[in-house]
Amino acid sequence: MARPPRVRIISTGSEILQGLYPDTNAQNLSRLFFEQGFEVVGHSAVGDHRPRTRATLENALSDAELVVMTGGLGPTEDDVNRFVIAELYGLALVRDARAEEMLRERFRYRGITMPERNVVQADLPAGCRTLYNHWGTAPGFFLPPVQARPALLALPGPPKEWRPMIERAFEEEISDLFPGRPRRRVYSLHVSMTAESTLNEALSDLFREGQDTELALLANRGHIRIRLIATGEDDADLDRRISAMRAKVLDRIGEKLPYSEGQDATTLEEALLAAMQQRGLTLATAESCTGGWVAKALTDIAGSSATLVAGWVTYSNEAKARELGVDPGVIEEHGAVSEETARAMAEGARRKSGADIAISVTGIAGPSGGSEEKPVGTVWFALSDARGSEARRRVFPGDRDAVREFSMRQALELVRRRILSLDLDAPLHPSSL
Amino acid sequence: MARPPRVRIISTGSEILQGLYPDTNAQNLSRLFFEQGFEVVGHSAVGDHRPRTRATLENALSDAELVVMTGGLGPTEDDVNRFVIAELYGLALVRDARAEEMLRERFRYRGITMPERNVVQADLPAGCRTLYNHWGTAPGFFLPPVQARPALLALPGPPKEWRPMIERAFEEEISDLFPGRPRRRVYSLHVSMTAESTLNEALSDLFREGQDTELALLANRGHIRIRLIATGEDDADLDRRISAMRAKVLDRIGEKLPYSEGQDATTLEEALLAAMQQRGLTLATAESCTGGWVAKALTDIAGSSATLVAGWVTYSNEAKARELGVDPGVIEEHGAVSEETARAMAEGARRKSGADIAISVTGIAGPSGGSEEKPVGTVWFALSDARGSEARRRVFPGDRDAVREFSMRQALELVRRRILSLDLDAPLHPSSL
Repeated sequence: MARPPRVRIISTGSEILQGLYPDTNAQNLSRLFFEQGFEVVGHSAVGDHRPRTRATLENALSDAELVVMTGGLGPTEDDVNRFVIAELYGLALVRDARAEEMLRERFRYRGITMPERNVVQADLPAGCRTLYNHWGTAPGFFLPPVQARPALLALPGPPKEWRPMIERAFEEEISDLFPGRPRRRVYSLHVSMTAESTLNEALSDLFREGQDTELALLANRGHIRIRLIATGEDDADLDRRISAMRAKVLDRIGEKLPYSEGQDATTLEEALLAAMQQRGLTLATAESCTGGWVAKALTDIAGSSATLVAGWVTYSNEAKARELGVDPGVIEEHGAVSEETARAMAEGARRKSGADIAISVTGIAGPSGGSEEKPVGTVWFALSDARGSEARRRVFPGDRDAVREFSMRQALELVRRRILSLDLDAPLHPSSL
Repeated sequence: MARPPRVRIISTGSEILQGLYPDTNAQNLSRLFFEQGFEVVGHSAVGDHRPRTRATLENALSDAELVVMTGGLGPTEDDVNRFVIAELYGLALVRDARAEEMLRERFRYRGITMPERNVVQADLPAGCRTLYNHWGTAPGFFLPPVQARPALLALPGPPKEWRPMIERAFEEEISDLFPGRPRRRVYSLHVSMTAESTLNEALSDLFREGQDTELALLANRGHIRIRLIATGEDDADLDRRISAMRAKVLDRIGEKLPYSEGQDATTLEEALLAAMQQRGLTLATAESCTGGWVAKALTDIAGSSATLVAGWVTYSNEAKARELGVDPGVIEEHGAVSEETARAMAEGARRKSGADIAISVTGIAGPSGGSEEKPVGTVWFALSDARGSEARRRVFPGDRDAVREFSMRQALELVRRRILSLDLDAPLHPSSL
C-alpha cells in the first residue's frame, strides 16, 4: 500500500500564541486531510513575525509533501506570509488582476473607498493558482511542487473563507497531485448512556493489532463515539472492511444501542426528535438539576416546537409542588431527589401539558448538597406515558457541569429508548457511569 | 525594558494531528506564560514518532529560552519524550526512587498489580528536578539550562496533572531563572449587550500606538471582553497604568456598563445572581426561542435555586396560553413574536411564580419563519416587576445558534440593568447587534 502523503499545517496569528483561542483551524484541517488519506505529521503556530515565519515554513518544507498555511494574508505590515512564501519558492509577487477587481468591488459594495495599501492582497507568487475569495477579502493560492519545494496551499484565516477554497483546491489540484495515495474510510457509531469501561471490555478483542480495521473509543460526558478507520487501496474493499467491523461491533453491543451512525451522523437530540416526529409523539420536560438544559438541547434544533409542547424548570421544592402538582408530603418524606418525586414530576408535566410522554430530572449536581446515602452526582429520572411510569437512578462522576451534562444526555436517551421500546438498561448498563 | 524570555510549546499526541481535539494545552499554557511576562514564540504539535519528536525539539531548543512539552510521558513504546529529551541533553535516564514508589502505591491503591514495564515512567534525565504527580501516574520534570541547551519543562498531558506541577515549577524554578523578565498585567472589563463596532468607535483613540497600555476587544455573541495589557518593570507603575487606562475606558463607556472586571471576573450569570442575592430578589423565566437556555445558564451556578424560583419553556402558542395565561387573541392579533406577547409572557410568569421579577424571550431564531417585517433574528424581550413592565426588540445576526446565544445574554443583561436601575439601552445601544 502507498504511504500517505505527509502534510504540515502552519497557523499564523499572535492571538493563538497569547492563548486567546485554541487553534481550531489546525484541528479542522487535520481531520479533513486525515479522512482524505493524508498523514498530518505536524502543526505549528507562529506569530506575525517575518524571521520566525520564514524559519517555521523552511522547516516544514524540508520534510512535508504538502504545506498548508492559514492566516497572515491581510493588508497590514504584520501580514508576512505572501512575502515569506515568495522568497522561499524564489518567485516574484505578481498582481492578479481579477483578484484586484474583486477586492475593489467588495469595498464598492460596502460603500467604502478601498485604502490603496489593501491592493497588496492581490499580489500573489508568480505561477500560483489563485483561489478567489467570494466570502472575504484575501484570496488564497496553491503552489504546485517546484524543484526541491513541495506543494503549498495558502489560505486566509476565517473558516467560512477557507472551507470553500480548500474544497476547490482538492478537486482541481490536490487530488491529481497525489493520485496514488491510500484511500481511507472513517465511520462512527454514536452511543449514549453506556460506561466507556464496559464498552472497552465488550470490544476488547477488536482493538487488538492485526485487525485490518482500526477501532477507537472517544468518550465525553455520556457521549461515546466508536470510531472505525480503514485504510487501503480499493474503495470496495474499504467498504467491505468497515461493514464487517460494524457488524462485529453491533453483535457485541446490540443492534439498536447506537442512536446514530455514519458520515452525517445526527446528534442525540436530533435522533430523538426525528424518532418522535416519525411517530407523531409530543414531549414535555420537568427539570430540576439540569435547569432547562434538556429543553435547551431539543430546541437547538429547528422545528422542535411541534414536538416539545412545554417545559418546566422547577428548581425549588415550591415550584415542583405549585407548577407540577408534586405532593409536598412526598418531597418531605422522600426528598426532592428521590424516585417518588421524579415520578410525580413526570406525571405532573404530562398531565398539565397533555404531551404523549414526559421526562423528569432531579438530582444533586453539587458541589454541596450530597450525603452518604445520596452523594453528589446522584440523579433520579422518570418517564411518564400512556403505558405508565418508569424511574431510574444514576450516579455520575465529575463536577457540577459534568453531572448536569451527563444528566441531560441520560434524559434524552431514556426518552429515545422508551419510544423505541428498547430496554432502558440493556445491554450495557453499569450502576454508575 | 528587558525582553520577555522566549518560550516554545510542544504538544504530543496523534489525536491532535488527526484533528480529534483542538490543542487546548498549548492554548492554556500560552495564556499562562503571556500573563507571566514571557513571549510564546511558537507552538508545535507532533505525533508519537521518535525522529519527528527529536527534530521538533531540536528546532525549539535552537531559539527558545524555555521549552515546555506536554504528553508523551506514558509507559508504552509510543511515549518517546523522555528518551528524546535525555538524548538531546546528553543525559542518562536514572530511576527516581520516590517516583517509582508513588507509581507502585497508585496501583496498589486501585487494587491492581502494576505491569513491570510501567516503571519506565520513573526513569528521568539525570540532574532534573522531579515534579511528582499526585493526580496521575507520569511525573513531570524540569531541566535547568545546560551549556547550549535552554531550560525545559516536561509535563504529562492531562491538565489536572500539569496545572499543579507548573504552579510549583514557577515558584521553585522558573521565577528564579528569569528574574529580570518584564512584569505584565492583563486586566479585563466584561460588557454585554453592546455592539462591537460601537465600542470600537467609542474607544478608537485608545487603540492608537504610542499608548503605554495596550487595548483590545474580543467579541463573542454578545459578550465583549475589553482587554488592557501593560508591560514594564515596576509593579506599582503597571498598576498605575492599568488604573489610568481603566478610568479612560469607563469614562467613555459608562461606569456601570461592565458587569464584571479584574482577574477573577465573574460571568454575566454569576454577576446577575450575586446582584439578586444581595437584594434578596427572586426571578422567573418564560422562554420561547431560547428554549430553556436562560434558565440553564443561571442554574450552571451552584446556589441558584433560591433565586430562580421557576422557569417555563413555552415554545408553542398553546403552551404560552395554557401555562402563562397569554390571551390567545393577543397572539393571533400581534403574533407570537411581538411586544404584546412578550409582555403577557413575563406578566404571566411573574404572577404564577410569585417571583419579584420575570423575564420573557420570544423570537425568530431561524433558519425559517422570518418575514420582511420580522426577519430571522428578531427577538422581543419583556421584564415584569412591581414597577410595571418594559419590552425591547432586538435583531441579532448569525445562524440559529448565534441568535439563541445572543438572546440568552440579552435576557440576563436586561434583568441585571433593571435591578441596578440602569438605563436599559444606554449608553451604547445600536438598534441591531
